[in-house]
Amino acid sequence: MFKIRVLVTALALISSISVASAWKALPTVAPAPANNPTTEEKVELGKMLYHDPRLSSTGTVSCASCHNTQLGGEDNRPNSMGVNGQTGGRSAPTVWNAAFNTVQFWDGRAASLEEQAAGPVTNPIEMGMKSWDDVVARLQTIDGYKLAFEQVFGKDAISKDNATKAIAAYERTLITPNSAYDKYVAGDKSALTAQQVRGMDTVQELGCTACHSGPAFNGPGLFQKFPAHSNASFAEKHHFKDDKGLAEVSKKPDDEHLWKVPTLRNIALTAPYFHNGAVKTLDEAVTIMAKLQLDKDLSKEQLADIVAFLNSLTGEFPKQKMPVLPATLGATFN
Amino acid sequence: MFKIRVLVTALALISSISVASAWKALPTVAPAPANNPTTEEKVELGKMLYHDPRLSSTGTVSCASCHNTQLGGEDNRPNSMGVNGQTGGRSAPTVWNAAFNTVQFWDGRAASLEEQAAGPVTNPIEMGMKSWDDVVARLQTIDGYKLAFEQVFGKDAISKDNATKAIAAYERTLITPNSAYDKYVAGDKSALTAQQVRGMDTVQELGCTACHSGPAFNGPGLFQKFPAHSNASFAEKHHFKDDKGLAEVSKKPDDEHLWKVPTLRNIALTAPYFHNGAVKTLDEAVTIMAKLQLDKDLSKEQLADIVAFLNSLTGEFPKQKMPVLPATLGATFN
Repeated sequence: MFKIRVLVTALALISSISVASAWKALPTVAPAPANNPTTEEKVELGKMLYHDPRLSSTGTVSCASCHNTQLGGEDNRPNSMGVNGQTGGRSAPTVWNAAFNTVQFWDGRAASLEEQAAGPVTNPIEMGMKSWDDVVARLQTIDGYKLAFEQVFGKDAISKDNATKAIAAYERTLITPNSAYDKYVAGDKSALTAQQVRGMDTVQELGCTACHSGPAFNGPGLFQKFPAHSNASFAEKHHFKDDKGLAEVSKKPDDEHLWKVPTLRNIALTAPYFHNGAVKTLDEAVTIMAKLQLDKDLSKEQLADIVAFLNSLTGEFPKQKMPVLPATLGATFN
Repeated sequence: MFKIRVLVTALALISSISVASAWKALPTVAPAPANNPTTEEKVELGKMLYHDPRLSSTGTVSCASCHNTQLGGEDNRPNSMGVNGQTGGRSAPTVWNAAFNTVQFWDGRAASLEEQAAGPVTNPIEMGMKSWDDVVARLQTIDGYKLAFEQVFGKDAISKDNATKAIAAYERTLITPNSAYDKYVAGDKSALTAQQVRGMDTVQELGCTACHSGPAFNGPGLFQKFPAHSNASFAEKHHFKDDKGLAEVSKKPDDEHLWKVPTLRNIALTAPYFHNGAVKTLDEAVTIMAKLQLDKDLSKEQLADIVAFLNSLTGEFPKQKMPVLPATLGATFN
């Protein structure tokens, strides 16, 4: 009897180790770089900057406009709308759990949240500021920001570097743990339905996890080619190949159609899908991914199971206080 | 001795009654109409709707985009920017303390917050929805809203009427009490500086309070003519007469250049000024008001005193939780 017990315990251990290695719960704290430790005051400043439309030329577009912290971390639009109603060619990635991306932007051209945060502010079709010098000059007219930067970074500290550090520190707190999946992985076997467990198995068997692995389902590699397999009807219908991905920045032919592997966390909330936001439903997105990346046609049951599993990745959104933005006194936007 | 005490007490009473009638602190609760009592759940639903950009055609403009609850209740722009980067001719009035307006919109064409809330959603240059039927249809695709409306209003309750009631109920909570002025009126004589007290007296002596009276400085009448006196240089420079105010709606010549008396609460935060947002600083706005409404030229000291007093009207902004908006599943905006 004792021997049997030991054996059962040993098997359970092995089994739980194996599960632990393949399926990971989302950490509740994101690691911060050595030169930008996360502090409460910095997060508060970053939250203000993140939600402040005065970081755009027109005073109408904040980081949160396209990466909405009250929704799934993006805007549910195929392409975001920047200043003066302009739109680009890519769909806003979610800010939730972006702290767990190894690279940022769809094309992965930024190595950190800090680097990413600097980009949209001066992008002419996003937030439209002429330069970070102009952003800094504007922030310097707002007494509340002078004080807040001083409290976090010291005297006369309003700068691009510090503003993006604060925004990144805030973004590191935008984590959505305790999804049904996370509870299941933590041992609550009732957290997933039988269909969701089948979907979880199917995702692994089909090979989705070759790219979508790790706690945020966005690892282990930095980039993947999309589409990996050619399928004329899908590719043409959705114009997936119009945008060359990383090669648009690097200009290297080898980088053509290389993309960051996006997280699957909260994917039920972030339609429409793909880098160009061309696909409206999760069912169609999964069908396309199976065909274009794995060259597989899913059965109706497989598709339903996978989508059920993906729905289990919707996490708990932290309750946030609304920032009270420091006032502009007497200034205006033209 | 006793007689003197009685006399002093009596004088103090008369004095405090006189102060109480002329200068009023802001109520901390706004009265609600009988058919729309304020409840916690309704306020929560209204807060969600107020901040939800999916109430606009493009999914990019919410009530809060132009009437920003993280700032002074508006957008610090001369004219707000609606869907697709469009702008109109008027400056967004603040939502803070709008509950204490007797009429709504610059031209006072709405008699209640409920009526006001219906307008911008289907205005083609503001939120751009084709009709409230379209808004209701969109909300019905969002399960979280179906549930929230049901909890507040009963089954199958998503409607224009209930949505605007919820938004109005939320707006009735957007009150900014405890300004330095309010503390002063409540008896804390150290709450205002000597200059602010001089400004307070000047405001009354000059006659500003003929229109800007009551706790929100926006009564007692519904409408006033602006400009009341003609001054070619001011009027032309700022194009004040291009917009005919209430007459644009009523088409009656008697209503030309009639406007709602706007609140002075938080006015330091809500530049630029006037119905068309043509004036960038509070100093210039006060100078213009004295000239165009009272036909008076202010001394440098009078101007500085009045502006100092107006700065005492900035209240305490309630700490709000950020709403978590119910998710759109698989839908999109084109």
